[in-house]
Amino acid sequence: MSKNLTSRSEDYSKWYNELVVKADLAENSAVRGCMVIKPYGYAIWEKMQAQLDYMFKETGHQNAYFPLFVPKSLFEAEEKNAKGFAKECAVVTHYRLQNDPDNTGKLRVDPTAKLEEELVVRPTSEAIIWNTFKGWVQSYRDLPLLINQWANVVRWEMRTRLFLRTAEFLWQEGHTAHATKSEAVAEAIQMNNIYAKFAEEFMAIPVIQGVKTESERFAGAEETYCIEALMQDGKALQAGTSHFLGQNFAKAFDVKFANNEGKQDYVWATSWGVSTRLMGALIMTHSDDKGLVLPPNLAPYQVVIVPIYKNDDQFMKISKQAEIIKASLKSEGISVKYDNRTTQRPGHKFAQHELQGVPVRLAIGPKDLESGTVELARRDTLTKEVVDLGNITSCVKAQLEEIQDSLFKKALNFRSAHITKVESFEEFKTVLEQKTGFISAHWDGSSETEDKIKEITKATIRCIPIDSDFENGKCVFSGKPSKQRVLFAKAY
Amino acid sequence: MSKNLTSRSEDYSKWYNELVVKADLAENSAVRGCMVIKPYGYAIWEKMQAQLDYMFKETGHQNAYFPLFVPKSLFEAEEKNAKGFAKECAVVTHYRLQNDPDNTGKLRVDPTAKLEEELVVRPTSEAIIWNTFKGWVQSYRDLPLLINQWANVVRWEMRTRLFLRTAEFLWQEGHTAHATKSEAVAEAIQMNNIYAKFAEEFMAIPVIQGVKTESERFAGAEETYCIEALMQDGKALQAGTSHFLGQNFAKAFDVKFANNEGKQDYVWATSWGVSTRLMGALIMTHSDDKGLVLPPNLAPYQVVIVPIYKNDDQFMKISKQAEIIKASLKSEGISVKYDNRTTQRPGHKFAQHELQGVPVRLAIGPKDLESGTVELARRDTLTKEVVDLGNITSCVKAQLEEIQDSLFKKALNFRSAHITKVESFEEFKTVLEQKTGFISAHWDGSSETEDKIKEITKATIRCIPIDSDFENGKCVFSGKPSKQRVLFAKAY
Repeated sequence: MSKNLTSRSEDYSKWYNELVVKADLAENSAVRGCMVIKPYGYAIWEKMQAQLDYMFKETGHQNAYFPLFVPKSLFEAEEKNAKGFAKECAVVTHYRLQNDPDNTGKLRVDPTAKLEEELVVRPTSEAIIWNTFKGWVQSYRDLPLLINQWANVVRWEMRTRLFLRTAEFLWQEGHTAHATKSEAVAEAIQMNNIYAKFAEEFMAIPVIQGVKTESERFAGAEETYCIEALMQDGKALQAGTSHFLGQNFAKAFDVKFANNEGKQDYVWATSWGVSTRLMGALIMTHSDDKGLVLPPNLAPYQVVIVPIYKNDDQFMKISKQAEIIKASLKSEGISVKYDNRTTQRPGHKFAQHELQGVPVRLAIGPKDLESGTVELARRDTLTKEVVDLGNITSCVKAQLEEIQDSLFKKALNFRSAHITKVESFEEFKTVLEQKTGFISAHWDGSSETEDKIKEITKATIRCIPIDSDFENGKCVFSGKPSKQRVLFAKAY
Repeated sequence: MSKNLTSRSEDYSKWYNELVVKADLAENSAVRGCMVIKPYGYAIWEKMQAQLDYMFKETGHQNAYFPLFVPKSLFEAEEKNAKGFAKECAVVTHYRLQNDPDNTGKLRVDPTAKLEEELVVRPTSEAIIWNTFKGWVQSYRDLPLLINQWANVVRWEMRTRLFLRTAEFLWQEGHTAHATKSEAVAEAIQMNNIYAKFAEEFMAIPVIQGVKTESERFAGAEETYCIEALMQDGKALQAGTSHFLGQNFAKAFDVKFANNEGKQDYVWATSWGVSTRLMGALIMTHSDDKGLVLPPNLAPYQVVIVPIYKNDDQFMKISKQAEIIKASLKSEGISVKYDNRTTQRPGHKFAQHELQGVPVRLAIGPKDLESGTVELARRDTLTKEVVDLGNITSCVKAQLEEIQDSLFKKALNFRSAHITKVESFEEFKTVLEQKTGFISAHWDGSSETEDKIKEITKATIRCIPIDSDFENGKCVFSGKPSKQRVLFAKAY
């Protein structure tokens, strides 16, 4: 266990990279840009999956599975979508290896096993799914189709970072088909709401709901809804998106239905997704210089018990006590690990659990046995207290709720302090560089202005917030009239 | 809803193919050999996953995720394994598409975006995982590593069939590393036991545990344990395998550890997996000419309630009753669907639920309302009874247990009747063609004999059963001495 985690103030980016690896969340693999998600990191992802899956099913969605590969001719059918992803597609061209005649013991691609049509490894599944939906939809009785898929996708990114931007990542992608435009729009909004609720209530990450500008929209969408979070370094992170796709894919794949008057019409579509990128948001919202800080809802184990002993007799007695506490906590639905490794000293265990963000640590020593107490330490505040054994279960339960709540409030306070209204481009640039965070500013609505601001400052329009009031003003860059403020930020 | 499912006696293979599609389990996709798993089929797979995942975690395994791609140089490191899979590898050679200059609106592979090293789409993950394990193991304290992955894999099969053999399939693959040979062997056996328990108790599929002969072993394994099931047409199906890999992968990837005396040694390995192929086993073990028959443990919903009414008033009253029954069943942990679609008639609903194998169907009509009864139909036996409302929950509960039990017994009886001891090769051929099933015969232990029998009869040695007694005899083919009977069969 190395204690030398770079501090956030020293180098935020380095701190993040080190933390991901040292806390055993993920590591780089032998494949360029692809990560290995380690058991501890994967256990957190599984908790996210379980909760999202529950929320999707509660709203009537069903899971299914579609092929990893998309034939090139299908991939290119919806032109905007294809154009948006073409530059980052991994392409399968052959289906066999053979012994390399020039290199004993080595293999080479068999030149005679070339595919007639290349297969794109899915960067997203609209094409293959809409080609399938064509066979599933005949009449309005077949609608809505409310489908979700848990899958891996590949986007050949040039600059990758663990969880935030990897060539392969895990995600869920919802794909729905509806009889009317209004129903599809309502679905896209509903799913964005679900993402916001999940982020805030489950991950303790406050998010702003909004819509993307045209240039930031998903390739092939008519409208992209999003949730945007703010990281501790003042940069924004897009945590989830939900797209109203209009009839674009239905037209590209000829998916029509007979409405209840018997007339043929194209189907309306949505798609929506969140990915292992959420792991990055989780880390950069809550963690500190000592390591990961996990909201109890996402912790692989919420409580760790560490015995402190000098001899076998003490160890035995403490273990007995620890097992009683563990059973009592478990009966309340709390996940507990008793760290009874004899190969590591308590100091090492404390450091490890701190680094891995276990919300509550209980330590039991010989004196605790005598006095009938336990030392309870909170990971988020790093505070300790001595608790009577008789109260331990109720106390831990209350602390876990308090931690979940407190992490959200802390992040919300940070974000509130980092949304700054500016009225001039000078002010815009100063705030962006010195204070960082979201900048709330008037914008003239043109892609041209958006591009220029991005070019000069590297800030992008993160979203047009859904709950913002209309307000007359002048574009911070062009001076042209504007009716609403939008949120700018530098972003991950 | 088409009623015309080909009967099993007419054409078993056709019956299977039709059933998979008509019961909404899966369908072929636009990608050669790749399937779409439809929501109803995927819901069954999710139940399998949840139970297996629970059993893996109960035995100390953790989930993780490793890259989809394997660089060719890693793939070829373990020679036997590489050789075994080389002929069916999908290979990524490029990472970008570009506009096709000769074909407006179309894309082509960008010839300048060729990968320096080709990437194999994982047909199995030993190579990438053992390359990763190298960094995870230094000392005996790091062992055992007990890792599982839920993932998609690709094997470019020439002849594919839904669920049974597809180019892409879903599976779990366990990969473990141990300090000693005996520990690794015990792990491989433990996981095969878990697969057997899962198949029998959860899927109601009786299986024979055994070891594979050398020629049927997993490429790179020292020993392959397996579970073999018998389908209704008398063909065997390998339902799961668990491999003791010796130190082959540790040597190929140089994974050493310091034992507790400080000496360096190579790590011992296992790997084990089951896949969506289990869906095929499920279908071909229990289903009948009317469609799917599902054991209650795997049914997406265990009970369906169908209202029978002539007017809105009746529908309203029946619906009220149905909702009460549904709530009562749910409180007992039973999953229920109330099929209140007004767009379909009861006859259509009955046929659909029969086709989809819902274990118990409850029908409520106006007369039932008067008499306080419900009609209960069992899918497996196609029997009906009238049940008093007051007893409905306990009665359904008992029936579900009875169905689960009865399906296993029925399959077990079928299998027992289809294991035939033979003493001559003439008898072997006659039984294989006329009676079908497993043939228990003496074999001289040579691959040569095994190959010849396969060539002549198409039967393979499914396994050397673990629980069979030693018995002196003569090889059914060569007449050479043998000490144990093995099981032959034609297989999927």
